[in-house]
Amino acid sequence: MDDVFRYIDTHRDRFVGELCTLLRQPSISAQNVGVSECAELVRRYVGEAGAEARVIPTPGYPVVYGQVPAPGAGRSVLIYGHYDVQPPEPLELWETPPFEPSIRRGRIYARGAGDNKGQLFAHLKAVEAVLRTRGRLPLTLKMCFEGEEEVSSRNLPGFVSAHRELLAADVVYASDGPMHPSGPTVYFGCRGLLYLELIARGAARDLHSGNYGGVAPAPAAHLTRGLASLWARRGKVAVAGFYDRVRKPSPADRRVLRAIPFDAESVRADLGLPPETAAAGRAYYRRLLMQPNLNVAGLTSGYQGPGSKTIIPRVARAKLDVRLVMDQDPDEIEEKIHAHLKRHGFGDIEVKRLGAVPPSRTPVDHPYGQAVVRAVTRAWGRRPVLFPNLGGTIPDYLFTRGLGLPSIWVPYAPHDEANHAPNESITLEGFVNGIRSTAAALFEIAAA
Amino acid sequence: MDDVFRYIDTHRDRFVGELCTLLRQPSISAQNVGVSECAELVRRYVGEAGAEARVIPTPGYPVVYGQVPAPGAGRSVLIYGHYDVQPPEPLELWETPPFEPSIRRGRIYARGAGDNKGQLFAHLKAVEAVLRTRGRLPLTLKMCFEGEEEVSSRNLPGFVSAHRELLAADVVYASDGPMHPSGPTVYFGCRGLLYLELIARGAARDLHSGNYGGVAPAPAAHLTRGLASLWARRGKVAVAGFYDRVRKPSPADRRVLRAIPFDAESVRADLGLPPETAAAGRAYYRRLLMQPNLNVAGLTSGYQGPGSKTIIPRVARAKLDVRLVMDQDPDEIEEKIHAHLKRHGFGDIEVKRLGAVPPSRTPVDHPYGQAVVRAVTRAWGRRPVLFPNLGGTIPDYLFTRGLGLPSIWVPYAPHDEANHAPNESITLEGFVNGIRSTAAALFEIAAA
Repeated sequence: MDDVFRYIDTHRDRFVGELCTLLRQPSISAQNVGVSECAELVRRYVGEAGAEARVIPTPGYPVVYGQVPAPGAGRSVLIYGHYDVQPPEPLELWETPPFEPSIRRGRIYARGAGDNKGQLFAHLKAVEAVLRTRGRLPLTLKMCFEGEEEVSSRNLPGFVSAHRELLAADVVYASDGPMHPSGPTVYFGCRGLLYLELIARGAARDLHSGNYGGVAPAPAAHLTRGLASLWARRGKVAVAGFYDRVRKPSPADRRVLRAIPFDAESVRADLGLPPETAAAGRAYYRRLLMQPNLNVAGLTSGYQGPGSKTIIPRVARAKLDVRLVMDQDPDEIEEKIHAHLKRHGFGDIEVKRLGAVPPSRTPVDHPYGQAVVRAVTRAWGRRPVLFPNLGGTIPDYLFTRGLGLPSIWVPYAPHDEANHAPNESITLEGFVNGIRSTAAALFEIAAA
Repeated sequence: MDDVFRYIDTHRDRFVGELCTLLRQPSISAQNVGVSECAELVRRYVGEAGAEARVIPTPGYPVVYGQVPAPGAGRSVLIYGHYDVQPPEPLELWETPPFEPSIRRGRIYARGAGDNKGQLFAHLKAVEAVLRTRGRLPLTLKMCFEGEEEVSSRNLPGFVSAHRELLAADVVYASDGPMHPSGPTVYFGCRGLLYLELIARGAARDLHSGNYGGVAPAPAAHLTRGLASLWARRGKVAVAGFYDRVRKPSPADRRVLRAIPFDAESVRADLGLPPETAAAGRAYYRRLLMQPNLNVAGLTSGYQGPGSKTIIPRVARAKLDVRLVMDQDPDEIEEKIHAHLKRHGFGDIEVKRLGAVPPSRTPVDHPYGQAVVRAVTRAWGRRPVLFPNLGGTIPDYLFTRGLGLPSIWVPYAPHDEANHAPNESITLEGFVNGIRSTAAALFEIAAA
């Protein structure tokens, strides 16, 4: 691997410059900003890396697909990533503009730097490095980069069923999410996601709260009470049957969970929380990875400006994101939330589904997983931390359930990448070691 | 009164034109837009009506004061109004811009047309009409127009204590709020108001809900649950002691309440509600006027744009407006809400007071009240509906408690004035009969 790693060192500055070009192109799928333009740019970079590249349309944003055939039968790996990004708001909290990459303190700052353009781009540069030094790859490589991950991968299921032949492989390799604070990390799946919008409506217009308070419907109070009814005391979810299918960690899971280093003080410092409020110790990873969670991602109703305005708002809305674990099913959970609201007197609250992704996992002791762990160890010069799954959500089920493949994830962004938040970043070290990791993984998987 | 009423008819178009000039001047106290400029304009109109006019500074926005002394001892009346207006948002729902008055369908549309510039201006034109036809008023008139009513009359208490001599009178006469749908209306007080902002805070930044959901504080969910805990089932307020001081209606109150016409269908049509959801029948006015109410006037947290964004917001805020009835006390109620939140595990939610006005009432059978009822009957040609108090809030306690005066309110805006909402209006009929009402009231009070 030394020749490949040398090539990466030699061309490192150019790689960073090219990544900045990619980061300058907005691709906000939730807001329809620049996504198609970005697909075209990614296709160009896939081609420049040495792969056959094409943009494949979907009913939403296109998939960028790339392929590098290896002579002879041999193994094949499918690499997945996404080129769309989260909305950059609130803009005023960015130190430098989200789509003008800035390099400082050993990091590249930009929306998408960590999630997921920086990680996606590392794969391309690994392909370039192996092809330029060895003239060929040790296995057949397929790459599938979607443009709708940040809006729950709406059209990826259809794409995967329509292109099973194109995507056929032995294993899926992908990079998304942040590394653990202690360094290199390997994940074996993810939590699922059910994203709902709850809407309560009242009169046809905002009403003066003095002239109507007590005699007109009050949707903001109604929504508040409906939402709150979803929790029991101490934050447990009160929806009947919510926990029914939650799978207990296996002995292997428990071993892996126990081995994850946990530094409560650094978590607290990172979140800016007073020492007593962060969850502590061994419970942290079990709760984050093995337990579902119901989160209010947004609330909006009535007057939100300075000072006071005395109205009964005509409408109130909440964004609700529900993280699911094996073997919870998004359809079933949505049904149960519906039934709960109805049973508790909130059946008039409209529930709109904005996205759903089932949870997904590959066993932590899978042979391809061990190959990937060896590759990451070579790239970083030390063993990675193993996670049974991400706390976040990726469309892993399409590979594990949809294609029946093992699927292994190696994040290249730092633990404090601030993805989905202002001042998102990737470290230069993480980007470069990411390129090395992908390159090494191609060889280790080929040899496994 | 015929000469005075004739003068009003003759000059009606000019009066409407002058009111439009006043409406063109924004005076949004909650947003610090144009309030001082508006005070200057009101002072000019007070002077033009024939009164000694001055702008008296306060620590906030100034009071415009006017005086027309009557020769000899005789009675004196103090007229109160306010020249500030509510914020005009949401702007996109206005048919014509809020500060460009538009006359259509027999109404003047503009922010402040009803609440309160149109009503305030009717007093000035009444003074002009009486002075131009009779050469003098039948009693001493004092006028006090504040610029902070829409932000809970922050500096009016201080102003009243500092100027007791200047404001000394036998009775207070004022116009604010909407008329009853059936026509002319006389009110004898108001509900009080306690306006709070509740703020829950979490990590120092928005967090990715996948990477932190379950292990980091979730202020949006926490605020939702804290807020919801304020209600018991069926919408009763759950705060201990909240209803302790609520006064039962007197026999006279009950007679007055029973005499208020109620047209459930027109209320429903006006609010755009399906027939089954509006409160019905006799309970309507008892609930609106004699019961306190806890309203969520605004909610804001996290992502509020289109589509989904998976964050744990770092902060969540709610605007809470609490309408109070006799003899509830805002300080005591705020204390009880504090105690409730603390007792239920929400003691970390910050509670900020944005305003407080105690409830206030004058007996419905007061002699000056009877005089005003006669005046309104002459102005409109029919008897008004009597209300024991407004559902809304006005700083009436400053006159009843602060100055020890009876205080009677005659609204000139229509029941569907859409005050505090888009497309606010006053009818031309209400404006003109308002001028007639104030003029007649000066004579009836003088003779009482």
